[in-house]
Amino acid sequence: MAKKFIPIKDTLSKEKVGKEVSIRGWVYRKRELKDKVFLVIRDSSGIIQAVSKEGEKAFKNAQKITIESSLTLTGKVREDSRAPGGFEIDISELEIVGLAEPFPIGRDLSEEFLLDVRHLWLRSQKMIAILKIRSTVLGAIHEFFRSRGYYEFDPPILTPTACEGTMTLFKVKYFDEIMYLTQSWQLYAEAGIFALEKIYDVAPTFRAEPSKTAMHIAEFWMAEMEAAWMKLDEITEVAKDEIKFIIKKVLEKNKPELKILGRDIKLLEKYATAEYPTITYTDALKILEKKGMKIPWGKDLRTKEEEILGDHFGIPVVVTNYPKDIMAFYKPSDPKDPKTALCFDMIAPEGYREIVGGSERSNDIKQMKEDLKKKGAGSGDYEWYFDLRKYGAVPHSGYGVGVERVISWICGLKNIKDAISFPRTMKRFRP
Amino acid sequence: MAKKFIPIKDTLSKEKVGKEVSIRGWVYRKRELKDKVFLVIRDSSGIIQAVSKEGEKAFKNAQKITIESSLTLTGKVREDSRAPGGFEIDISELEIVGLAEPFPIGRDLSEEFLLDVRHLWLRSQKMIAILKIRSTVLGAIHEFFRSRGYYEFDPPILTPTACEGTMTLFKVKYFDEIMYLTQSWQLYAEAGIFALEKIYDVAPTFRAEPSKTAMHIAEFWMAEMEAAWMKLDEITEVAKDEIKFIIKKVLEKNKPELKILGRDIKLLEKYATAEYPTITYTDALKILEKKGMKIPWGKDLRTKEEEILGDHFGIPVVVTNYPKDIMAFYKPSDPKDPKTALCFDMIAPEGYREIVGGSERSNDIKQMKEDLKKKGAGSGDYEWYFDLRKYGAVPHSGYGVGVERVISWICGLKNIKDAISFPRTMKRFRP
Repeated sequence: MAKKFIPIKDTLSKEKVGKEVSIRGWVYRKRELKDKVFLVIRDSSGIIQAVSKEGEKAFKNAQKITIESSLTLTGKVREDSRAPGGFEIDISELEIVGLAEPFPIGRDLSEEFLLDVRHLWLRSQKMIAILKIRSTVLGAIHEFFRSRGYYEFDPPILTPTACEGTMTLFKVKYFDEIMYLTQSWQLYAEAGIFALEKIYDVAPTFRAEPSKTAMHIAEFWMAEMEAAWMKLDEITEVAKDEIKFIIKKVLEKNKPELKILGRDIKLLEKYATAEYPTITYTDALKILEKKGMKIPWGKDLRTKEEEILGDHFGIPVVVTNYPKDIMAFYKPSDPKDPKTALCFDMIAPEGYREIVGGSERSNDIKQMKEDLKKKGAGSGDYEWYFDLRKYGAVPHSGYGVGVERVISWICGLKNIKDAISFPRTMKRFRP
Repeated sequence: MAKKFIPIKDTLSKEKVGKEVSIRGWVYRKRELKDKVFLVIRDSSGIIQAVSKEGEKAFKNAQKITIESSLTLTGKVREDSRAPGGFEIDISELEIVGLAEPFPIGRDLSEEFLLDVRHLWLRSQKMIAILKIRSTVLGAIHEFFRSRGYYEFDPPILTPTACEGTMTLFKVKYFDEIMYLTQSWQLYAEAGIFALEKIYDVAPTFRAEPSKTAMHIAEFWMAEMEAAWMKLDEITEVAKDEIKFIIKKVLEKNKPELKILGRDIKLLEKYATAEYPTITYTDALKILEKKGMKIPWGKDLRTKEEEILGDHFGIPVVVTNYPKDIMAFYKPSDPKDPKTALCFDMIAPEGYREIVGGSERSNDIKQMKEDLKKKGAGSGDYEWYFDLRKYGAVPHSGYGVGVERVISWICGLKNIKDAISFPRTMKRFRP
């Protein structure tokens, strides 16, 4: 192809007016009058309207072409306030690359149907916007940690042991053995810090939760960090900085996409700059009580409570010092308040709940073994993990960011399934 | 901790001579004389020797501390040509953070033992060097594609269908269903390009190959790209640029690590700048024949053949147009030579074999269905994939880079298992 194709985004400019351009993409909309065909063409960069008139060379193809057909097109750019985006192309050449059969997705289709045809629904303006924001979020995570001297460290995905409880493990037939899909990189990351001190990753994570809420998927991505020598008060600050950095990057790069999604930019600007408060679990109960919700000390915060806390602050809030007894075995007691653990969650507003969770890591093998026993788990599988405490233990901490949770929140999505290309839930595993 | 700790790398400087510094890390080596203790301290940035003399406050702790114990240390920097790195610290304070039990790893231990204690072996100078290079390689891949306008697109890891043959699939018990671990993002990426046009990812990939060679692991990372409108000749050039870009970045950032690994820097400089040739499979057979190796046209290239080709060129070589019959169903025939496919492998020298593989993607549903049938596979599972051809098909191509293959090659590793933190093979799945 000798023609020089330009992104549609670059045709939407006063500089291009009167000039001939060539674009390629897909037919997003089509409207036919007796003597004119209006096509809205999309590519990954944007959309522009193009028009073909009866009597012109391209008219036959313009009439013939169908929604979602692929094409290449040449024509002159004209300003037109009636066209979406304010510019229009007068088509001089139109080549149909792939003529589409009648496209199965119209208006007002059910969520389940759109998931059935996810491979086609990805090309909707909504999904393109989300996928672009997702790419920005992932890039921002890499940039954030690398700019602070962290190394990227990939943990194994197939693991012989559980990390977050055995109930939600996916079993894999591994040659003649059984292995599990990782629930968190954490145990392995704790080995990694003895080599690299400050590490991060972005990797898929799996939890076989039968939950059918709009906030759960069985396969999701976690962006985790682990750092030698760091304490709880340091990692909560890193987490706040990271979340704000991500939002700033999205605001920098994806305003058009946020507009497509109808997201309130002002609100995101607040999230990008506000000081996020840090409170304890005990403080959180007091706030909830004032709102008429009495939770007995020791009970975990559920959906409802997290939603109320999120609304109360209107910005993300870090909650530390959850009750030790309901926390994983590797979260140490706070010496200043031993019935609580040195851990935190960050709760997002607008009902998006926990987006970050982390803790210091215990170096007390005896306590961890007792905790595992209390929870009915053996400690045999963890001997290698305890080794990390026997050979040069250091204070260390880490946290994980739920990538799809953050994307859902930034995009203002109603269902987390839209934050990932091909969602997996208990009932949804195709295509 | 009020002390300001600096990275060990920053103590190795004439500017620091005569000045007091504080560092923290682990004891890498220890040597005791009657009245002196020499400690080599490591952190993630480097190593430095420190010395404590009898009669000084820190001497008792210096005597007591063991290999791989963690510590914080303060002292004055002195130039000393006998010390590794040329500088030494006269210890004034030494605090033991975590006293290590006798470290199980000494000298000359077997490969299997080092894999048994992989969680501890990661902190060896060799593994630290490799892990840092791995982090650079991953960062370079992200940078390369993002700088060219590609979006990061995550495919699902759990898939209902096979991509690279059903023999090497890992089965997952998925609630009441059976799913498989992904063997390639490709089928899903082909849906993604209709939204984003140019996409890439770096993600874990699984193949249940019982192979026990030094070049196979069951869980590995692939960096893949897929692009709308691109043809074979374009993606082979992208692949060459990518590999050179990765090597350049490693040369920029990891010379000290390459030295630790004993890698020939000059050779890598050649790989970073040379023009990589492109030949056809048929050309390759001619070269092999001249070397006394007669391969019947139509047979795939095996280990031995790839090694000889790699040696012949001494730089990576792109081999295109493999016989269509031995290629996957989605690789189209070359119209100019229909018994061959529009596909390529990039073969690395020094016995590192295939590091990249890719192809154009067929848009011919009939041909693909026939191919699947010939291979004894049904096409029912692929209906959604064929849809991508029904609704606005475009020419498109993609390739995948074997991340651990590239790392092995750059680092000059004997076994690919060392290119990943916790390798998984048929016989190795712990820790």
